[in-house]
Amino acid sequence: MTDQEPAHRSRRGAGRDAKRAARLAHAIEAVPFINEVLDEEGLALIEHNADTVLEEIGIDFKDDPEALQVWREAGADVQGERVHFPRGMCRAIVQKSAPREYVQHARNPQRSVVMGGKNTVFAPNYGSPFVRDLDQGRRYGTIEDFRNFVKLSYMSPYLHHSGGTVCEPVDLPVNKRHLDMVYAHMRYSDKPFMGSVTHPLRAQDSVEMAKVLFGADYLDPLTGRPKTIMTSLINANSPLTWDATMLGALKVYARANQGVLTTPFILAGAMAPVTIAGACTCTLAEALSGMAFVQLLNPGCPVIFGSFASSISMQSGAPTFGTPEPSHVLYTMGALARRLGVPFRSGGALCASKIADAQAAYESANTMVATVLGGANFVLHTAGWLEGGLSVGYEKFVMDCDQAGMMHSFLAGVDLSDNGQAMDAIREVGPGKHFLGCAHTQANFQTAFYRSPLADNNSAEQWEAEGSLDMAQRANAVWKKMLREYEPPPIDPAVDEALLDYMARRKGSFPDSNV
Amino acid sequence: MTDQEPAHRSRRGAGRDAKRAARLAHAIEAVPFINEVLDEEGLALIEHNADTVLEEIGIDFKDDPEALQVWREAGADVQGERVHFPRGMCRAIVQKSAPREYVQHARNPQRSVVMGGKNTVFAPNYGSPFVRDLDQGRRYGTIEDFRNFVKLSYMSPYLHHSGGTVCEPVDLPVNKRHLDMVYAHMRYSDKPFMGSVTHPLRAQDSVEMAKVLFGADYLDPLTGRPKTIMTSLINANSPLTWDATMLGALKVYARANQGVLTTPFILAGAMAPVTIAGACTCTLAEALSGMAFVQLLNPGCPVIFGSFASSISMQSGAPTFGTPEPSHVLYTMGALARRLGVPFRSGGALCASKIADAQAAYESANTMVATVLGGANFVLHTAGWLEGGLSVGYEKFVMDCDQAGMMHSFLAGVDLSDNGQAMDAIREVGPGKHFLGCAHTQANFQTAFYRSPLADNNSAEQWEAEGSLDMAQRANAVWKKMLREYEPPPIDPAVDEALLDYMARRKGSFPDSNV
Repeated sequence: MTDQEPAHRSRRGAGRDAKRAARLAHAIEAVPFINEVLDEEGLALIEHNADTVLEEIGIDFKDDPEALQVWREAGADVQGERVHFPRGMCRAIVQKSAPREYVQHARNPQRSVVMGGKNTVFAPNYGSPFVRDLDQGRRYGTIEDFRNFVKLSYMSPYLHHSGGTVCEPVDLPVNKRHLDMVYAHMRYSDKPFMGSVTHPLRAQDSVEMAKVLFGADYLDPLTGRPKTIMTSLINANSPLTWDATMLGALKVYARANQGVLTTPFILAGAMAPVTIAGACTCTLAEALSGMAFVQLLNPGCPVIFGSFASSISMQSGAPTFGTPEPSHVLYTMGALARRLGVPFRSGGALCASKIADAQAAYESANTMVATVLGGANFVLHTAGWLEGGLSVGYEKFVMDCDQAGMMHSFLAGVDLSDNGQAMDAIREVGPGKHFLGCAHTQANFQTAFYRSPLADNNSAEQWEAEGSLDMAQRANAVWKKMLREYEPPPIDPAVDEALLDYMARRKGSFPDSNV
Repeated sequence: MTDQEPAHRSRRGAGRDAKRAARLAHAIEAVPFINEVLDEEGLALIEHNADTVLEEIGIDFKDDPEALQVWREAGADVQGERVHFPRGMCRAIVQKSAPREYVQHARNPQRSVVMGGKNTVFAPNYGSPFVRDLDQGRRYGTIEDFRNFVKLSYMSPYLHHSGGTVCEPVDLPVNKRHLDMVYAHMRYSDKPFMGSVTHPLRAQDSVEMAKVLFGADYLDPLTGRPKTIMTSLINANSPLTWDATMLGALKVYARANQGVLTTPFILAGAMAPVTIAGACTCTLAEALSGMAFVQLLNPGCPVIFGSFASSISMQSGAPTFGTPEPSHVLYTMGALARRLGVPFRSGGALCASKIADAQAAYESANTMVATVLGGANFVLHTAGWLEGGLSVGYEKFVMDCDQAGMMHSFLAGVDLSDNGQAMDAIREVGPGKHFLGCAHTQANFQTAFYRSPLADNNSAEQWEAEGSLDMAQRANAVWKKMLREYEPPPIDPAVDEALLDYMARRKGSFPDSNV
């Protein structure tokens, strides 16, 4: 992808040469979703069961009387902190006002992305307290690491989004680090990003800084409502629970018209039943209740249906990744999200491996293919994830970006133009000859195939002569080179000053704390 | 898979508990093929273009006057060694008599496989002159290596088939090694296998040894025809050429009613145009001509539509694997094979990496997911492939078998029984608790998730305490343990003696040669 292309990849082949695309709109075919891991009957069964969970068992909204009042007024049956929903209520609320797709605006308009529909938006790793590279091994993340991953995400042509907590900057106080994190996304990248969710006040800081960043552009002149500048991650405290911290951040973002990504975080067997259908049922029930709550607070506010689900080791209870069962969940949840009619988030380059070895790659590739074919619209953890998310790896990051690049080519589909059909070339070369030198090959050689910067395709002899490096060792050189060559995107100095001023004022207004 | 289960994995969930499967036949859903990378119109265009190639450009049948005579009698236009086929002729011949699916018989009837339909049959690596392991590095293969890979394939519950040239036993004379190879499959495994194709006489030896192995069971009592005991690999000499060696072996197998796997071997940009549609067109034309030739020789003889296609490096011309373009070809060719109505072979754990590192795993996983979702019925190279097929790796072999195991679970689909729905468990646990100890989890824990013998899911601390081994290092211990524990399947001593006698007589009847 170049800067001239839209910053999301459409499955309809957007971003290819526009003229040719228009001419061949019928011919360049999209890669479809797999939406039949369960058929109509199976999907309807999961929906029925989720409605039963919502009605009979209910969802806890903890330590948030306001949320309970909202639900009471909407007609739900509130008993203590537990909310029971009449069958179909949450679905009806969501379908009444949640947008099927929405634009998340970047400060560089060319980087704005469309969430939902046929689009896939790739974002980097999220949430790891540790970082790892080949030189220093595993260590706690710092704000310097955070900035590095923002820079690498900015530089990768295959990531559309700057993400959120790309790693935890553990060297900064817990109650202030969100300011530096949000600022890093704003200053070192011009791609869209995510806001803080660890406290309602931190969510509010994120909103305020977004206002500063966008200035007069913060409000959409057509609607008078705030533009959606952030999409932020609100995890359920599964099973069947929303806690006060997440609800507090959710309310801030919903009322500011910022995108809310409600995600049940499910390890099947721990936070949900140990079966696929059971995990899907719980995920659907939780996500429906979260998205409906957003719509009650601010009808039309953008939401994304999130699903994070994996299996666990039968020996230790540790989470496992890249196994068949999470793929089943992913394909099923993607189909359910499309039936509901909202954008879908799932998957990523997930793995349990501690290092960027073959285990990491098998697991990540298994998950990413399912992510893309399952129709995820927003993909957190596209790059960098290691050891169940506890670490983000520098080498893994650039390796995963390479894989994301392959997905761009895959999703562009097959070219059926005359040039793609290549009948003249077949006629020219004929039986028993080779195509390497023919005019058609020469004309298409540079663009015909995805070109990996990390794969070694040389002979064993040449590979040995060059030091017998494995992929992780080659990746080590690549991320260092990228950071050396990084140049920040331009920013209005007055805006930068205002952001720094906001941060300084806020940091000075309360003491540091690590709670 | 246990010994009691059918030795192929059906997408309809065969091999699961039979009673439950019967009750839930409507509910346990199959994972579908992706058959819409191209839509109906796109697929018809490729078929039209392939017919144009067959009619206008033609296919060379080299150094085989008999083949030309067969085509002449069938109504083709033969000019020199080039055969031009009226539009639709090859398709009509194939569809008239080629079986949609067939049984390849193993000497242990429980190991027999069904080729075609909704079945996926996994076979090991094929054709590598080199072997690699962590202890000895890369070296030429020997008959000992060959036997080792036959034994490992026999022991893996996830491979259904013993394959063919699992590696080249370079320590044996070229003109006699086929005898030891075929014998190894017959003696050290009881799974189905492939015959020699490097000379018509070696194909005939394979047939003769199959007759010895099956004895009175060689002929099917119902039809009076030979049972299909082998499926053997006949590669086209792409572009658009069949050579005399391959045609000679093809004729032996076709007349003996043995399965013929006709496979155009295409590196797009070298043996076919540099575009997806062009490569698909050539593959279809070549495969159609090969399969039709088999049907002309022996109507009803089992054939498989093979497609081996990859891209090439734009720097060096070296083959590349696991990239998006071969996946496009695979999905397209799978759809075309289903439209034709014959079994389909493609894919495998293909990679360009020299070692079992992250590159190997990304590339292999990308290819294997496409293989399975693309609907390949027969999968050569499921395990062991390295450096574009030049090497087969011991560690890679067991790592790929683990991945094949995951595909078994994936293809079994989602359980929608009451137990799968787990509504009682959700009711029992409720919001805010966990499912680890509940009765439903306890009852399903052992079988709920695919269990990898190679993945490390432990904490970073524990992983370090255990030596910080990467997946390849763990795999090293696994294949050695498997070979230590190997026990050969029983064989009738008289049959074994007759096989050894046949080999000794053949070996003594002509001098060694490495040509």
